[in-house]
Amino acid sequence: MSEELVGNLLVAQSGGPTPVINASLAGVISEALKHEENIEEIYGGLNGIQGILREELIDLASESQQTVRGLKTTPGAALGTCRYKIKKEADYDRILDVFAAHNIRYFLYIGGNDSQDTAAKIHERAVAKGYELRVIGVPKTIDNDLPITDHCPGYGSVVKHICTTVREMSCDNAAMGQHDFVSILEVMGRNAGWLAAGSVLAKRKNNPEDAPHIVLLPEAPFNRQAFLDQVQRVLSKQKHCFVVTSEGVTDENGNFLGADESSKDAFGHAVLGGAGEALRGIVESGLPGVKARSAKLGIAQRAASHSGSATDVDEAFKAGAQAVKAAVEGKSGQMVVFVREDKDQYSIKYDLAPLGEIANAVKTFPANWIGEDKMSIGFQFAKYAQPLIQGENTLPYENGLPKYAQLSAIRIERKLGAYDAK
Amino acid sequence: MSEELVGNLLVAQSGGPTPVINASLAGVISEALKHEENIEEIYGGLNGIQGILREELIDLASESQQTVRGLKTTPGAALGTCRYKIKKEADYDRILDVFAAHNIRYFLYIGGNDSQDTAAKIHERAVAKGYELRVIGVPKTIDNDLPITDHCPGYGSVVKHICTTVREMSCDNAAMGQHDFVSILEVMGRNAGWLAAGSVLAKRKNNPEDAPHIVLLPEAPFNRQAFLDQVQRVLSKQKHCFVVTSEGVTDENGNFLGADESSKDAFGHAVLGGAGEALRGIVESGLPGVKARSAKLGIAQRAASHSGSATDVDEAFKAGAQAVKAAVEGKSGQMVVFVREDKDQYSIKYDLAPLGEIANAVKTFPANWIGEDKMSIGFQFAKYAQPLIQGENTLPYENGLPKYAQLSAIRIERKLGAYDAK
Repeated sequence: MSEELVGNLLVAQSGGPTPVINASLAGVISEALKHEENIEEIYGGLNGIQGILREELIDLASESQQTVRGLKTTPGAALGTCRYKIKKEADYDRILDVFAAHNIRYFLYIGGNDSQDTAAKIHERAVAKGYELRVIGVPKTIDNDLPITDHCPGYGSVVKHICTTVREMSCDNAAMGQHDFVSILEVMGRNAGWLAAGSVLAKRKNNPEDAPHIVLLPEAPFNRQAFLDQVQRVLSKQKHCFVVTSEGVTDENGNFLGADESSKDAFGHAVLGGAGEALRGIVESGLPGVKARSAKLGIAQRAASHSGSATDVDEAFKAGAQAVKAAVEGKSGQMVVFVREDKDQYSIKYDLAPLGEIANAVKTFPANWIGEDKMSIGFQFAKYAQPLIQGENTLPYENGLPKYAQLSAIRIERKLGAYDAK
Repeated sequence: MSEELVGNLLVAQSGGPTPVINASLAGVISEALKHEENIEEIYGGLNGIQGILREELIDLASESQQTVRGLKTTPGAALGTCRYKIKKEADYDRILDVFAAHNIRYFLYIGGNDSQDTAAKIHERAVAKGYELRVIGVPKTIDNDLPITDHCPGYGSVVKHICTTVREMSCDNAAMGQHDFVSILEVMGRNAGWLAAGSVLAKRKNNPEDAPHIVLLPEAPFNRQAFLDQVQRVLSKQKHCFVVTSEGVTDENGNFLGADESSKDAFGHAVLGGAGEALRGIVESGLPGVKARSAKLGIAQRAASHSGSATDVDEAFKAGAQAVKAAVEGKSGQMVVFVREDKDQYSIKYDLAPLGEIANAVKTFPANWIGEDKMSIGFQFAKYAQPLIQGENTLPYENGLPKYAQLSAIRIERKLGAYDAK
């Protein structure tokens, strides 16, 4: 591939939003502007690959600098995302047609496993067809479950918000005069328990009795009796017990503890309550006299830019910038990964890994970091995760509330006919 | 009553914690230190009236200035609270015995309706017994349902956090490519809908289509069909519909939409799911093809000091200080209230109202501020509430997380025998 490739850049976002997916977008835009010898126009694709199939492109170079700066701390996904799975070969042909029509030579895809699988296949098809294109993936997932990379942009911010919440709820719990109170917080994580595990950073050093007292992960099957015994042990020493649970915790037969979002009862009604509410029921029926309450942050946790990690924002921004640099240098079919350097002070360097190796792998929480009781997290984890939540975001406020950036989203004129992408 | 009364001051906290109940405590301590001619010692009662009955007092004057400053933005209730209801006359005798034993002449009680009822009765008993005592209440409740006062300390902070959450979740919802998505946020408010109503401040000016699109209050009985029709109307124009519901919404027969926290099924198991989850079920069963998700902030909302209102903190602090001033000036049997001044710029002055008039009254959300559709809030409300969420808290952070104040809590030696207060 020639380093002298000249053409337009297209960036898109995919999968569930994170507090920093827009920081990566800002990194891409900012870096792309520095390479005018290679990059002529900077386009954004709306709603990931689905919008690209529909030729829904916008002009990102015309956004104000204020907007691009604001993206660094704006939740959601400014370009819109999708969960579209490419099903037919014709989709790939269409994508390359759209790229050719708009002279797209640099394609950056910010997303998780599935999205990098799509990116990998676009790269392969371009090579097979002899269409000169550089495809670089930018990692993104609050679940922290991408392989190879030390951690994923988005994870640190959500952990920071969860820990802030645990610490605050724990102040409230401690204030109540009553004993025998169980507070349950349900956090995201259907297959991997990284987020629930992250809650242990809420404990202050030298205070092992701080919340959370019990942490439940999808990686450790739930045992009702062992759980109730552990709750009782905590309540014998302290007046409240704080439980953090992943939404995806299952029993020993692999059944979700909380009803699946999509499950229905015999009458077609949605079954209610997640893992947190299920645990509340288990505590109140299993331990008479004990009162429990649950909270479920839901989508709020992955959108909480107002209490995100400045380290995470910075790394996400740089991941976007590194992706552009790699593409301009001639790389393709790769994703940006973080490599932790072997230094006393936390530092990472940015490297690349083949998209194919990222695509269909999941990094679950390491078994040797889960306590023997299957309900606690080893101290090695804190060493790993602590640096990821450092630094506070500074947001612009207006009239008492955070002012989030919004793209002007000026459309690029279509050059092709309509295409059915559903 | 003499203005020359000299003795010790006792302050206690009661009921559910708020993000600013400790700011009022800081205001009491700071102001009390300025009146050494009247106030000799500054004591705190642990766990409200229950701890006072048990003679559990601590020395607040010995707390560091750093701790007292930290209290302004620390959630929970640093002294501990209680929900103890005084049941027998002997309790009042005991309270006055404890006061006499420690020469308590100034008693400040930070709490809501029930707590001010207790304060009123202590005042009456002291008068009847000829024990010279000045009792002043400091208002506190996120529910904003105390009469007479323009608003209550705690309300503005929780509204600010709810609005921040609505705005952030809405960014996330807007990012998803899918249409027909309903996002539901359940907030506190069992009898009064002030908090749910407060969520409308999340709408930006000139953007009536911003979230929340539907607001459900306990004051407006829920009608399933009207709700589903309204959801459909929103979804016909926008790809997502955002619903904020009070936990205490009821149907037309007065039954809670969400299972009561304490309800059990026929087998003694706790019934799961709150109003938010109930609405999710109603949407998904009533509107096939529409997907819904709910989040429930639970205790997290009333503990979210990290995104509280600086105006609220300031007013709560001053309410505590005003209470001390009033007591030193010879007032008793009164609560501090906020009076909004008739000025172009928002400003309040601090006044007093008889405890007896506060005690057993509830200020529900005004009927004329509820929209005709019973699911929206009139613009007059925004004018009322907007000033309450202004200004951002600045918290000390340590190792990536908010550092909250903790009292040294040095105990005052008991002078009386044990007392059974359960």
